[in-house]
Amino acid sequence: MDKNEILSKVDHTLLNVTATWKEVKQICDDAISYHTASVCIPPSYVKQAYAYLKDKIKICTVIGFPNGYQTTAVKAFETKEAITNGASEIDMVINLGWVKDEKFDLIEKEIHMIKEMCQEKILKVIIETCLLLEEEKIKMCEIVTRAGVEYIKTSTGFSTYGATPEDIKLLSEHIGKNVKVKAAGGIASFEDAEELLRLGASRLGTSRLVSLAKSKDFR
Amino acid sequence: MDKNEILSKVDHTLLNVTATWKEVKQICDDAISYHTASVCIPPSYVKQAYAYLKDKIKICTVIGFPNGYQTTAVKAFETKEAITNGASEIDMVINLGWVKDEKFDLIEKEIHMIKEMCQEKILKVIIETCLLLEEEKIKMCEIVTRAGVEYIKTSTGFSTYGATPEDIKLLSEHIGKNVKVKAAGGIASFEDAEELLRLGASRLGTSRLVSLAKSKDFR
Repeated sequence: MDKNEILSKVDHTLLNVTATWKEVKQICDDAISYHTASVCIPPSYVKQAYAYLKDKIKICTVIGFPNGYQTTAVKAFETKEAITNGASEIDMVINLGWVKDEKFDLIEKEIHMIKEMCQEKILKVIIETCLLLEEEKIKMCEIVTRAGVEYIKTSTGFSTYGATPEDIKLLSEHIGKNVKVKAAGGIASFEDAEELLRLGASRLGTSRLVSLAKSKDFR
Repeated sequence: MDKNEILSKVDHTLLNVTATWKEVKQICDDAISYHTASVCIPPSYVKQAYAYLKDKIKICTVIGFPNGYQTTAVKAFETKEAITNGASEIDMVINLGWVKDEKFDLIEKEIHMIKEMCQEKILKVIIETCLLLEEEKIKMCEIVTRAGVEYIKTSTGFSTYGATPEDIKLLSEHIGKNVKVKAAGGIASFEDAEELLRLGASRLGTSRLVSLAKSKDFR
């Protein structure tokens, strides 16, 4: 697969807890240069990034991130504010304690509410695959399909491990036609990326592919 | 130092991302049995815990946790909701990118706003010492002192390491008389706890001391 095509599926991501505006700005500039799908940045930088970028590239941000155990009301408020500030894509984390408690009704209700806040913006639901059993992952595929969200996303990048080929395959097999898969966490090479795309991912969350592209100056 | 006295200074803490209500309930029961200062739990469980506990033990929860890069508006909303739901103590994380950007005015403004939301409730400001330089830690001591918050807290427990004796000493030396120190992260024994208290900590965030007390049945 062509490297530019792979880069076009990347959410160029900087979510380090100490990320500065200078670093976020650099990520934005690189995302434009390499024509990534979006730039994925912390909520507190969305407004500033939108003022800087206007509509040159889509801004993605994270909600209830990375632990997912904020209340639904807080996640809804955070989503609304992110969109007001200029975000076009919303990556939310589910409440993982509710998964373990089998409170799937609460999870589904929460996703529905956030989806409503998003209106025509893209919603990606992060399920943190590394902490879930296979049957829990399948259950989440069913819930996101019913909720009509755009993407199911594997990982926050803040837990034990990120996207695996096995999980991409599993999620791809169990989501409905309206849902796509975003692989995130630990994607370190174009070969990794290509395998995940081949297995069913449509979007990739990583900063390393742009870094590789920059260092090799492959164009 | 008497072990019961040490336990009386503990915020008995469960902040695992997959924490279930059953686990939270157990933490609450143990906190009552061992007379800890509070129980520290995820925001999504505060309402349920308050309904269960009433005023048997104080509920502490976390705001902007653990990454700290939510917007100020979201942190303020989250604080207000936590208090409405029954929290008596609020442990908020500062925006660490703003520290690295030297936007100390924004940090101070944010802390002031959260303090206002807290009214008479206790506010602890988590500075994530493991990511800060010595001069940044000192700067944060000055800011929290001016803001009139009750505690400066070392760590979230989700970064590279937690409270160290050196940091407790440093913070104790640079805060004003109105501020106390909460040590959190990696406190694994009563000996650890005693050393941190001796060096200036007034509160300890950990689940292990109650676990030890339970396993040894020391009373």
